[in-house]
Amino acid sequence: MPREQYADTMFDRVMVANRGEIAVRVIQACNELDIESVAVYSDADEDARHVRLADEAYHIGPSVARESYLNRDSLLEVARKAKVDAIHPGYGFLAESKSFASAVEDSDFVWIGPPSEVMEQFGEKTKARKIMRRADVPIVPGTTEPVTDVQTIRQFAHEHGYPIAIKADGGGGGRGLKVVHAEDEIEEQFTNAKREGEAYFDNSNVYVERYLENPRHIEVQILCDEHGNVRDLGERDCSIQRRQQKLIEETPSPALTETERENIRSAARKGAAEAGYVNAGTVEFLYEDGDFYFLEVNARIQVEHPISEMVTGLDLVQWQLRVAAGDPLTFDQADIQPRGHAMEFRINAENPSKEFAPMPGTVSRYRQPRGIGTRVDDGIDEGDKISPYYDSLIAKFIVSAEDRLHLLQRARRVLQEAEIEGVPSTIPFHRAMLDNDAFRNGEYSTKYIDEEFSMSSEEAE
Amino acid sequence: MPREQYADTMFDRVMVANRGEIAVRVIQACNELDIESVAVYSDADEDARHVRLADEAYHIGPSVARESYLNRDSLLEVARKAKVDAIHPGYGFLAESKSFASAVEDSDFVWIGPPSEVMEQFGEKTKARKIMRRADVPIVPGTTEPVTDVQTIRQFAHEHGYPIAIKADGGGGGRGLKVVHAEDEIEEQFTNAKREGEAYFDNSNVYVERYLENPRHIEVQILCDEHGNVRDLGERDCSIQRRQQKLIEETPSPALTETERENIRSAARKGAAEAGYVNAGTVEFLYEDGDFYFLEVNARIQVEHPISEMVTGLDLVQWQLRVAAGDPLTFDQADIQPRGHAMEFRINAENPSKEFAPMPGTVSRYRQPRGIGTRVDDGIDEGDKISPYYDSLIAKFIVSAEDRLHLLQRARRVLQEAEIEGVPSTIPFHRAMLDNDAFRNGEYSTKYIDEEFSMSSEEAE
Repeated sequence: MPREQYADTMFDRVMVANRGEIAVRVIQACNELDIESVAVYSDADEDARHVRLADEAYHIGPSVARESYLNRDSLLEVARKAKVDAIHPGYGFLAESKSFASAVEDSDFVWIGPPSEVMEQFGEKTKARKIMRRADVPIVPGTTEPVTDVQTIRQFAHEHGYPIAIKADGGGGGRGLKVVHAEDEIEEQFTNAKREGEAYFDNSNVYVERYLENPRHIEVQILCDEHGNVRDLGERDCSIQRRQQKLIEETPSPALTETERENIRSAARKGAAEAGYVNAGTVEFLYEDGDFYFLEVNARIQVEHPISEMVTGLDLVQWQLRVAAGDPLTFDQADIQPRGHAMEFRINAENPSKEFAPMPGTVSRYRQPRGIGTRVDDGIDEGDKISPYYDSLIAKFIVSAEDRLHLLQRARRVLQEAEIEGVPSTIPFHRAMLDNDAFRNGEYSTKYIDEEFSMSSEEAE
Repeated sequence: MPREQYADTMFDRVMVANRGEIAVRVIQACNELDIESVAVYSDADEDARHVRLADEAYHIGPSVARESYLNRDSLLEVARKAKVDAIHPGYGFLAESKSFASAVEDSDFVWIGPPSEVMEQFGEKTKARKIMRRADVPIVPGTTEPVTDVQTIRQFAHEHGYPIAIKADGGGGGRGLKVVHAEDEIEEQFTNAKREGEAYFDNSNVYVERYLENPRHIEVQILCDEHGNVRDLGERDCSIQRRQQKLIEETPSPALTETERENIRSAARKGAAEAGYVNAGTVEFLYEDGDFYFLEVNARIQVEHPISEMVTGLDLVQWQLRVAAGDPLTFDQADIQPRGHAMEFRINAENPSKEFAPMPGTVSRYRQPRGIGTRVDDGIDEGDKISPYYDSLIAKFIVSAEDRLHLLQRARRVLQEAEIEGVPSTIPFHRAMLDNDAFRNGEYSTKYIDEEFSMSSEEAE
């Protein structure tokens, strides 16, 4: 048994405080490390794939997430009952809750993610911006302190020009973000941003930034241990987004020169080192016309992590577990030589004619694509019910090839072979993208989908 | 469209003269290169997966292979009718028939494989041994000319000691191979080897070799273009065999030192260069106690090619097509840096309690394993019928990881998740192997399975 090669503190049992494909992903990683996995489930997920694959599973509440997957007391109670050593939060739900991480640590379970004090530095954008400034990482011109009055915003706009963005300090993923194009909009959007920050993130502080009109979203995967080793696994271009939700991610980014690539990766490592970062994380940047600016840190594993695994050959979730158990990273930065090209296509069960709302139903037929360069991460099997209660992501098709051109060809084959019936999915969207010239040429920004596809989405209503 | 990046002579339409998973594999490669694929099928395969995936499909005869997949006239007639540019033979059936390759070339179709005159050099073992001797590749001590009398064999055994092997010149895969342990067996086995050679390979010539009692089977994947570029993609250890049929293959071999690895790879390249080899091929060796000896060349793609693709990132079947169309290889030997470890588990539909005979039936349930480091190549979908007419290989689970230990752990997970119902399969065998200490430690020879598992196989009868 290979257990002896890990730290003495390697876990025997881990609870996965999540559902769907990421719960499956973590359970698989536990299984591969000879760690017993403990799943949790709501009413709706009683027979879900992550429950079927786990060594044990515990009910934590009704279908509504706030009473189950967001129910801290219920989760900690299961952790105690099941006698687990550690808790993996996945992404979403409580993954970026500093207070939950802290409660986990206080209950003597290991939190599989950055320590809560590291998370705290990145939970508020103004704190994160200060760290990056100290590390000489470029940030979008803006305030590093919360703004409390309209006058400060007016003055900032006067200095930097419109448009500007008013952003909730606790925000992320587009929530609590308000774009201001002219002075007379400031007051209303200031109020809106504060209200959304309060409602979604329990934090009404806001700050102001210059607003980039046509940026690309480029992020760097970092992995750090508690012994001071800081590594990056290359960048991901996640500019194909619809309403701030990523749909396709790829690595390497087709936009960067080799020098820019080296610079952005090095900036991410410097920022991570400055923050004393531990475990896996992502440093997100906006990129426009050769310049990049720090956006935020996602202090958790991300949906799109598999494309970095495809090109580096490393297993990020296994490393999350090992690092959390105290293991040092066993490779140097020079050992990480990304090879080939990889893309992830998010398969959401959603209705394109109903503003892409999650679409519940039963998956009556499901044929995964197979063959060379084809990885499927999913949370379902044929016959499973898609619940209306949660995120609509049901599968990820991850494709790799020798280079981007061969990848595009392979991806078309993969998306032709895949079959999902019983619920609508984003497969037709991806097939269309693979015939889209701008996408094929790598010429797209975060605005591309909303601008190019808005007509058809409105027509469909 | 990426066609312009290939040779002007790149094919528009390719016929796949095969069935099952390798036909699917070639059709996928055609699809990814924007080449139209033409499938062929026997009565039994009317609705097979390779037929469903191809752009067009033609009936070539009754279920019995000799009247369909081995029916040269019927295949060439379809090639003419479908107006294809080239024919891919897959493996098995006519893939190593020099005379069929020659008939294809004479009919002005491109043969996707080594030219028939190269195949001819390797079709007869004594010719192949002469080439390797010229290239300074070690060969098992033996005769380089066919032996015609018992006296020559006696004298060879006298010089080299017993056991010796009497081998059919046209043989391969264990057929036409007779082991002789003492002088009084020579006459009978000489006759047997000649008779099997005549029956299976239409060639009654035999030759004699020293017989290695406990060797490993280690082979090197080569890839050569018609411009003189000779590359190898590393070695594969295929010692896990049952009655000369490979069941698990891995790369790199756990038995070789780095120096031995470099030597065996270099020997394969020298042999390929000496033969003027073109297209993909495999140079097979026997390895025992630090020495390796040339065994034979398989002048075609092999079942186990995906493990080399996993560690090198290259697509061997795409390269077969490109090389056959005249494209030069675009990478140097130094660019090929195998990374990590990969294994292939052959999933055969066969009955372990009936001497592993092919077991027809309907696949009533089929859940492919998924997730990181997991590739599935298969020729079936759930609901398909397994025919008794052909080879029992229905799927290949190919697993890769950062190193061998993590691969063994991952493979266990993969084989736990996989489900095939309706026909018996080799999945339980593989699960048992993953708990077998000799296998886990990499300490096994080609004799291991037959010796260790013979009891249970006999008991089961």
